[in-house]
Amino acid sequence: MAEMIVAQHAGFCFGVKRAINLAEEALKDKKGRILSIGPLIHNPQEVKRLEEKGLRLLKDDGELLQGDKVIVRSHGIPPQKEKELLSKGVQIIDATCPFVKAVHEAVIKLCKEGYFVVIVGEKNHPEVVGALGYLQECGGRGVVVENKEDLREVLGKDRVGVVAQTTQNEQFFKEVVGEIALWTRELKVINTICNATSERQEDVYSLAPQVDVMIIIGGKNSGNTRRLYEIAKSLNPNSYHIETSQELKREWFERAKRIGITAGASTPDWIIEEVVSKIRELLV
Amino acid sequence: MAEMIVAQHAGFCFGVKRAINLAEEALKDKKGRILSIGPLIHNPQEVKRLEEKGLRLLKDDGELLQGDKVIVRSHGIPPQKEKELLSKGVQIIDATCPFVKAVHEAVIKLCKEGYFVVIVGEKNHPEVVGALGYLQECGGRGVVVENKEDLREVLGKDRVGVVAQTTQNEQFFKEVVGEIALWTRELKVINTICNATSERQEDVYSLAPQVDVMIIIGGKNSGNTRRLYEIAKSLNPNSYHIETSQELKREWFERAKRIGITAGASTPDWIIEEVVSKIRELLV
Repeated sequence: MAEMIVAQHAGFCFGVKRAINLAEEALKDKKGRILSIGPLIHNPQEVKRLEEKGLRLLKDDGELLQGDKVIVRSHGIPPQKEKELLSKGVQIIDATCPFVKAVHEAVIKLCKEGYFVVIVGEKNHPEVVGALGYLQECGGRGVVVENKEDLREVLGKDRVGVVAQTTQNEQFFKEVVGEIALWTRELKVINTICNATSERQEDVYSLAPQVDVMIIIGGKNSGNTRRLYEIAKSLNPNSYHIETSQELKREWFERAKRIGITAGASTPDWIIEEVVSKIRELLV
Repeated sequence: MAEMIVAQHAGFCFGVKRAINLAEEALKDKKGRILSIGPLIHNPQEVKRLEEKGLRLLKDDGELLQGDKVIVRSHGIPPQKEKELLSKGVQIIDATCPFVKAVHEAVIKLCKEGYFVVIVGEKNHPEVVGALGYLQECGGRGVVVENKEDLREVLGKDRVGVVAQTTQNEQFFKEVVGEIALWTRELKVINTICNATSERQEDVYSLAPQVDVMIIIGGKNSGNTRRLYEIAKSLNPNSYHIETSQELKREWFERAKRIGITAGASTPDWIIEEVVSKIRELLV
């Protein structure tokens, strides 16, 4: 019988749990509409569950009515967007993750100290878009570094300040910081990668090489899950990224003696449990 | 006939040239003694040449007499040592390299800003000993990181400031900075590796892989030369570190079509020229 090992740190992180709790609390009050700016978390299945409880996705600001409650998801929003919402007379339920708030604060601090600000992250990720909004509001200059090519924008900058998207890949962050240190006269780094990210990535580094198959569960739109998958794949070719148990294939587990399982920070426990049960079935 | 390629940046750097000029200038004045604290530069042959002109090596501070002239070499000295010398009534000729002075200033700046100071360098190198003296004078805490194991001392430090010995290996510096960025909340890096070092190292990165034999000339006690040799050796197994032309061996050049040559920042041109002539002889 094959052995199944679920990573010590898998699934919901503090910020995601908090956002869901805030949403569920708000949904208990049946008066008025509750809308989220973008999917509340990067997990389509969990978002569907909340939508069945009454949560709506805000598609266009034009839809907003005075008295609506708007949930800012854990990724946060740019300050300009927050002002715009308040001007429409809606009530904001701020579920921005405190660790994302720390990114905003770090960006403002580096900007005020006159650094050219580098945000190591995904250009189109809402968390990064939010952080860039704070940089813009502060009147600073900077760039998002998503891959090594983006580093060209940093060449010739004399004083560089670096922060990271909270769910950034630690190895990539390390390389980017090292490169910049060689070019610039003065570098200041505020490491804003959150503990939940480090723990989940470290678990994959230790688990993936010692199993025959590695399963990563989480939204295909979830940046932190994709990075767990990239790390796993680099260490174990038999690594798979799935959203739900329905994507599991019996042939993945043929001859497997040890199976590793982990899940991104936006993956609910009920999906992890479904996957574990389904694998158990396939192994019989 | 084999081709010989001398690296574009080889031999004396600005700081070493300046120290030798200051020494030669002082030696013209035949009154009184001129002593250097430690060998003026890390090149025994060039030091011998200057000793023949009258330069003495200070072996023990007890030897000093009022009116002696003492040359502080390009590596600098701790401020405590400087005060001690002045208290003995000697005249100081300060040949500390301006780029080394920049390391002292960076250490003081980071110390005053409350950082735990990391000096990436060789623990017993006079430049590092000098920089540590400034850290001590400022009342700060810190550590010298010579290898990855030393990084243990940095674990758990909340705010870390990093500087480098001017002749540090850029790749090692980059890795150290990247590692620390992952552990610490706030990191400030003042890159004090000097241009001469970067240029000489970059030349070796491009030259060593395209030649059959790579010769690195410089004092065996010269840190920057040893690092050029380590880089060359990692790229080309036929790399040799020599101090003078007498160490050259005919068999190194058998069947060699292209020969690369470079020299550390403390290697005088006359030694480079001797090596080039000797290789030419061996090739005939």
